[in-house]
Amino acid sequence: TVEHIFKEIFKTALEQQEEDHRKALLVSRKKKKEDTVIEVNGEKIGKDVPTFIFGPCAVESYEQVSTVAQAIAAKGQKLIRGGAYKPRTSPYDFQGLGLEGLKILSRAAKENGLAVVSEIVTPGHLEEALDYVDVIQIGARNMQNFELLKAAGSVRKPVLLKRGLAATIDEFINAAEYIIAQGNDQIVLCERGIRTYERATRNTLDISAVPILKQETHLPVFVDVTHSTGRRDLLLPTAKAAIAVGADGVMAEVHPDPAVALSDAQQQMNLEQFDEFYTELQKFMKSHAILV
Amino acid sequence: TVEHIFKEIFKTALEQQEEDHRKALLVSRKKKKEDTVIEVNGEKIGKDVPTFIFGPCAVESYEQVSTVAQAIAAKGQKLIRGGAYKPRTSPYDFQGLGLEGLKILSRAAKENGLAVVSEIVTPGHLEEALDYVDVIQIGARNMQNFELLKAAGSVRKPVLLKRGLAATIDEFINAAEYIIAQGNDQIVLCERGIRTYERATRNTLDISAVPILKQETHLPVFVDVTHSTGRRDLLLPTAKAAIAVGADGVMAEVHPDPAVALSDAQQQMNLEQFDEFYTELQKFMKSHAILV
Amino acid sequence: TVEHIFKEIFKTALEQQEEDHRKALLVSRKKKKEDTVIEVNGEKIGKDVPTFIFGPCAVESYEQVSTVAQAIAAKGQKLIRGGAYKPRTSPYDFQGLGLEGLKILSRAAKENGLAVVSEIVTPGHLEEALDYVDVIQIGARNMQNFELLKAAGSVRKPVLLKRGLAATIDEFINAAEYIIAQGNDQIVLCERGIRTYERATRNTLDISAVPILKQETHLPVFVDVTHSTGRRDLLLPTAKAAIAVGADGVMAEVHPDPAVALSDAQQQMNLEQFDEFYTELQKFMKSHAILV
Amino acid sequence: TVEHIFKEIFKTALEQQEEDHRKALLVSRKKKKEDTVIEVNGEKIGKDVPTFIFGPCAVESYEQVSTVAQAIAAKGQKLIRGGAYKPRTSPYDFQGLGLEGLKILSRAAKENGLAVVSEIVTPGHLEEALDYVDVIQIGARNMQNFELLKAAGSVRKPVLLKRGLAATIDEFINAAEYIIAQGNDQIVLCERGIRTYERATRNTLDISAVPILKQETHLPVFVDVTHSTGRRDLLLPTAKAAIAVGADGVMAEVHPDPAVALSDAQQQMNLEQFDEFYTELQKFMKSHAILV
Repeated sequence: TVEHIFKEIFKTALEQQEEDHRKALLVSRKKKKEDTVIEVNGEKIGKDVPTFIFGPCAVESYEQVSTVAQAIAAKGQKLIRGGAYKPRTSPYDFQGLGLEGLKILSRAAKENGLAVVSEIVTPGHLEEALDYVDVIQIGARNMQNFELLKAAGSVRKPVLLKRGLAATIDEFINAAEYIIAQGNDQIVLCERGIRTYERATRNTLDISAVPILKQETHLPVFVDVTHSTGRRDLLLPTAKAAIAVGADGVMAEVHPDPAVALSDAQQQMNLEQFDEFYTELQKFMKSHAILV
Repeated sequence: TVEHIFKEIFKTALEQQEEDHRKALLVSRKKKKEDTVIEVNGEKIGKDVPTFIFGPCAVESYEQVSTVAQAIAAKGQKLIRGGAYKPRTSPYDFQGLGLEGLKILSRAAKENGLAVVSEIVTPGHLEEALDYVDVIQIGARNMQNFELLKAAGSVRKPVLLKRGLAATIDEFINAAEYIIAQGNDQIVLCERGIRTYERATRNTLDISAVPILKQETHLPVFVDVTHSTGRRDLLLPTAKAAIAVGADGVMAEVHPDPAVALSDAQQQMNLEQFDEFYTELQKFMKSHAILV
Repeated sequence: TVEHIFKEIFKTALEQQEEDHRKALLVSRKKKKEDTVIEVNGEKIGKDVPTFIFGPCAVESYEQVSTVAQAIAAKGQKLIRGGAYKPRTSPYDFQGLGLEGLKILSRAAKENGLAVVSEIVTPGHLEEALDYVDVIQIGARNMQNFELLKAAGSVRKPVLLKRGLAATIDEFINAAEYIIAQGNDQIVLCERGIRTYERATRNTLDISAVPILKQETHLPVFVDVTHSTGRRDLLLPTAKAAIAVGADGVMAEVHPDPAVALSDAQQQMNLEQFDEFYTELQKFMKSHAILV
Repeated sequence: TVEHIFKEIFKTALEQQEEDHRKALLVSRKKKKEDTVIEVNGEKIGKDVPTFIFGPCAVESYEQVSTVAQAIAAKGQKLIRGGAYKPRTSPYDFQGLGLEGLKILSRAAKENGLAVVSEIVTPGHLEEALDYVDVIQIGARNMQNFELLKAAGSVRKPVLLKRGLAATIDEFINAAEYIIAQGNDQIVLCERGIRTYERATRNTLDISAVPILKQETHLPVFVDVTHSTGRRDLLLPTAKAAIAVGADGVMAEVHPDPAVALSDAQQQMNLEQFDEFYTELQKFMKSHAILV
């Protein structure tokens, strides 16, 4: 029917238009076909083999961080995460050690040959933090803190950008565009679960977002299995799913003694669980790597 | 059964505990029984009669703002809103006129005896903005921009805090606590719709949040009918619902020529629609005010 | 620009097409301009003054229902609700008294001059139920039980159709179309809250759905304040909001002794609360009715 | 502190109680430790190797179904799906061929040595369908059609139960309990995406639900990659993720000519795409199977 033909024309035209729009974005795969590879401390994020970011939720003490750093280094891994400026729902929750925490993290990292991934929550902290941070993390709550995105775009360090609590994939891509538009194309996108009605998990891991982000952009894509699920027992299966679906890496939280952690006690792995998680995942990846 | 009795004990104990927790919050009704009333330009927000905040989505020019300011003043209203720093999904969308926009808004407001409500998006803008803004708005995307909340808490101007895109009521209350914890108790909470699966409206107006926030806190509660619905045809019925449910005021966007607006063209009222909206709402309120 | 013009053409064309589609629906306001008014037991649902449906969640005994029926009749109300076939999450929860429950409800209703609203959950129950039910309720879980919709469409009794747990407004309208397509246009739509991430309320009352449904269809629209909120303390403010936004009626649950109710104990009003709710709402409506 | 100790006691007690509750369920892993294995046409669903269910969305003609059946059989697969009773949003959409469709499907299946998986939407259809169906599918819209669940529980054929559009995992488990409580323990649970705010995919595949369902119940768990994503380009990566996360099988739609399909044209694979999908998945599984 005529109506059907019209419908098809409109649809095609609309899709064309949206495609044009996406082509215009600097983060878009249309703009740059090749995968962006980000080199940090010898790790090539976005190239061939999945990479990992482990570490405690929050930096609490030198001993705590140092213990985790040794465990990470012992596995041949190159990156450590840890929060120094902690965005917390309540003003009376532990807010992080701030700059002091960054110094501790940086010291423990250096002693173990690791690079530091840590969250910055406001433009005013960026400059003081740069001396101690190798990868600037922008957290879910700040995905649309546009002044922070612009600030991160104007420095020459990689940025790990987490998806907002309830951000659409389109909003996520546009948030990355705020960074790249300032001249910084060293961006890692990180799916960390979205807010839905389901409460069996802390958030709902949107696993489909990974292949979509890989198609739409040329940036590496990580999955934070800790915040996606909020459950220790789901870290390993979801990490496998993340790698199977095509993620460039996985982030997970490790704490020497989760029971006394000052934040997110329920979801961090202790060192033994970390060993098991890592070994199982390596087995999974080795088999996987043969053919993919 | 014994199990049932135990269940009841646990439930009571848990509720007690949560209540204690809420009692501790400075914004809590448990901490302060009386309604907080915020006086701005002679308007008493949170006292007796609902108040209103009208104005364009974004400040675009002196002529535009001035026209709206006159329409507002002609109705005996005392406040005008307008965005100068605009948080936008894409970095290539109109980002607002910044400080220049605030100056324009402030000039038009003063000429018409109005006070200025305008959004601040980052702590760094706060100081320069203070000379031109009477009520600091913190937008939905920044509800958990905790450094901004702290900064707003440390000045002596009222703050209008919008609920985050997908914030729980509990997170919303805690965000307000970040402000009051710095010493500023002049806070207006503003429900502006939450993100759900439904797309008939831009967001889903969570009307029940209003009586809950009134119960839980001593702060005035507004409803932003423009961003809740994103539909001009729903502004009047939802404004009536807001007042009926107990809101202390309503915010709505007005633009001299919405079709050419640089943002949110579909949802702003033109001056004629504004007249009709206002007249109908006054009728509704008058009847309502007799008995409530 | 050319692109902008094209965009506008597409948009207009798409809207035109959607409008045509809606025009085709028998429930559509485009198909029939005048409000459908449904007369049950002398009540004219959808005409002028809001109407009410009160009653217990579940029929438990003659004494229980009879007590509530008397309280309803004493207020001059004409309808009583009560569940006989109860859809429950767990197979081990109280499943209702079935046909026996309908007989009890019908007897208590007749003795008090009331008409019966009760839920049917499967086509097989419909025939046996018809002798005892004046308005067939189709619950949220069955909004897309299409065979049940067709069955309800083929009888000559009014149908109260509740919105699905996570149904879009468009799906809701199409569900009603299944009924009317079988020849039964006596349909009341009932907003009862949608499932979202927010847990302060049992569901999120989508108040904006009311004016949208009134615009899009010619059917009366109710709001079930009990299931929307799941909180006794929110019944009155949300009922006011429902009436203010333009609903044709309100449904709320009343139980002689909610604490021992076999279902939904937390959200039903007792008789004293019912009196207060009703008196306050009448006051609100009287003032409202003067002008609207 | 005392408060903390109390908190821990309550928490433990609550968890204990919930655990007891789950232990009571017949579908629970607590009740039966060993995996339930369901044998259909020689396939052992839930045992060792993942199994597959392929076939068109709707049965349209003998030629259509026969073509797909041959392609499935050629791969050594044993099951075919196809909808005869189609639950559709609009009453004017294609509603399926009904019993005639089942006969066609059954004939094509037999000719190719396949077993039939097909959806039943109302108890009244069950008896007539039993002669033609080997696995009774209960769709997302009917997950809480409790009379249908009971009816399916009373026959001696396996049931594939899909998760509801916005069902919690807990509700999903309880829906399965309705079936098993009638004596039928041959149940396959099928995650098919949940409704969220995100629109890049038709639904949001809740990949974490798979390991949770495997932990909580002894039933096999499938993932329907077609309805989860609604996008042909995401079928392969999400199928890999499903297998990696521990699913017992994958369901996906195949149509000889998706462009002319009477339903879900955008998401079905054609035969060539099916070949590629299958080959790639086999490669992935072979590598995977070595170690897991």
